[in-house]
Amino acid sequence: MTERPMTAPRVRRTATTLADGRELIYFDDSEPYLSGAQSRTVSDERPLHDRPTAGTMRLDALTGDWVSIADHRQNRTFLPPTDECPLCPSGGGTMPSEIPAHEYDVVVFENRFPSFASGSTAVGSTAVGSSANPLLAHAPALGRCEVVCFTSDHDASFSSLSPARVRTVVDVWADRTRELSALDAVEHVFPFENRGEEIGVTLHHPHGQIYAYPFVPARTASLLRAATEHHQATGRLLGADLLAAELEAASRVVIRGAAWTVYVPYAARWPVEVHLVPNRDVPDLVALNDDERDELAEVYLDLLHRLDRYYEAPDGAPIALPYIAGWHQAPVRRGRDVSRLHLQVM
Amino acid sequence: MTERPMTAPRVRRTATTLADGRELIYFDDSEPYLSGAQSRTVSDERPLHDRPTAGTMRLDALTGDWVSIADHRQNRTFLPPTDECPLCPSGGGTMPSEIPAHEYDVVVFENRFPSFASGSTAVGSTAVGSSANPLLAHAPALGRCEVVCFTSDHDASFSSLSPARVRTVVDVWADRTRELSALDAVEHVFPFENRGEEIGVTLHHPHGQIYAYPFVPARTASLLRAATEHHQATGRLLGADLLAAELEAASRVVIRGAAWTVYVPYAARWPVEVHLVPNRDVPDLVALNDDERDELAEVYLDLLHRLDRYYEAPDGAPIALPYIAGWHQAPVRRGRDVSRLHLQVM
Repeated sequence: MTERPMTAPRVRRTATTLADGRELIYFDDSEPYLSGAQSRTVSDERPLHDRPTAGTMRLDALTGDWVSIADHRQNRTFLPPTDECPLCPSGGGTMPSEIPAHEYDVVVFENRFPSFASGSTAVGSTAVGSSANPLLAHAPALGRCEVVCFTSDHDASFSSLSPARVRTVVDVWADRTRELSALDAVEHVFPFENRGEEIGVTLHHPHGQIYAYPFVPARTASLLRAATEHHQATGRLLGADLLAAELEAASRVVIRGAAWTVYVPYAARWPVEVHLVPNRDVPDLVALNDDERDELAEVYLDLLHRLDRYYEAPDGAPIALPYIAGWHQAPVRRGRDVSRLHLQVM
Repeated sequence: MTERPMTAPRVRRTATTLADGRELIYFDDSEPYLSGAQSRTVSDERPLHDRPTAGTMRLDALTGDWVSIADHRQNRTFLPPTDECPLCPSGGGTMPSEIPAHEYDVVVFENRFPSFASGSTAVGSTAVGSSANPLLAHAPALGRCEVVCFTSDHDASFSSLSPARVRTVVDVWADRTRELSALDAVEHVFPFENRGEEIGVTLHHPHGQIYAYPFVPARTASLLRAATEHHQATGRLLGADLLAAELEAASRVVIRGAAWTVYVPYAARWPVEVHLVPNRDVPDLVALNDDERDELAEVYLDLLHRLDRYYEAPDGAPIALPYIAGWHQAPVRRGRDVSRLHLQVM
């Protein structure tokens, strides 16, 4: 295990590896920083197969998009009973979980069933597999997929976390964005959370994911194209001009903080869609300062609490709204001067 | 009512209007061409509201896409009982349907709950509504949405139609593409069929739809961008080169006809996805000659029959696969020299 200080000194970061070689990192935010301590961990002796290696991605020449072919994900864990939850601490249930510790605060580990993984040979992001025809190009699906457990409490949800815990999660997102952006193969880092079986969630334990893509995915490419065109035409950031336009219109602004603004986008595509944007121009989560991270924890919780109250059951009880929340960050290697961080919740 | 000859003389085309002014067109392919005849129609005296006028579309400045705001579609008919089916001929059920005739072969009419409609004032495709800020642009959602009933048999499906009937439907798609492309506001015509409640179908009677968009939708724009780049780089059509590549690879080719080829795309995004493409370079359905239309009816039915056999229930009975089938045509006003017609079934 290796330990090193984080940006925020109150969180202790402890990296280790699982039985199959996957990396797992504890982020402890509560005294006495128990989970990462040797005395509180258990040895991961599950008979796991080799560390997952990269699958394949193929070029969709009709659109120019890369498509990940993840047939190995067919075997992933699907809605297991609570006492077999792979995201709970080990020791409580009937079988060892993915987390070899009796307790944890926040933990991140490489997905056992990833769409993208590191290959045995690092061939770099531009390597394209040989093919008889360039229109039928393929490449190893390099990159990385990580799972972020927000709490060891199986029955919690993101919106029930304390502001201090959400602050830790913000640091974790920034930490992972910085480290994953440094990988040779990675072109884009996308932290997201899906909530609700309606959205396709297969594990109930509160968790999010981080996809480190070896290409710029289609929506990011589309955001980048529009931002680049706007910058060429005006010399300004599209995201900043759009925030100014929404503030002037005022009618769709939900929360206005010192560092963050939440608004319903003008051309919302979903019955419920809100954007959470920083008031300052920043390309990604790494660039956020401490004040911005502190307020983000409060504003995001405020937003989630409002969404929880948005729909009511016939008896007046609030209905937990299924949602997808995704952080749109600047791509790792291009368009960083025109891209602006925002969270899309829908 | 007006009658005029069609491209294929064996089909009689009869246009009329419904109680609220919407256009309805009978395409009769069986002797003695009964449905459009005056003696067999009934007067549509339903107390309908005014003909639907255009809603609004808004610019999503972050991506450059237009988004249709169709709140009026909330009231559309949802999975009605069979005897209230609005797509059956009138007279058989307990209430008048959308089709004021005792019988019909194929019929097309303007959707009563359209995403796009003609406005009271034709303002042309480039008109953008005034707004304090160009990033919050809006415009009337001009265009047209049509429903195509493939048969008066409520319990049929597209795959159970006769080849002669499918041939009629091909002519109908081409007829509608030609007429809708001539409307000032229309930039793109998209005929499609959704099958199965899993896909969001709200009426079981076998039918498809045609969206005549006042803008080039996102997927079409993405196809056009890739096709344009390929043409600039090679002087050739991307669709033609891709067909040649698939024929050379051979392993994904499902049906190879004289005029049409069906293949599973190299970078398929769905567990079941097939493309049906013409062997000749044509931009849209209008450009197909009679031989191509004849073979299309046979090849498309062959494809649908194969899909019907793709999944079996535990007792060995075939499972009707839910699908989306969409015709990707060249946009009306640009990129026609680089675009190539294809049907995507998934």
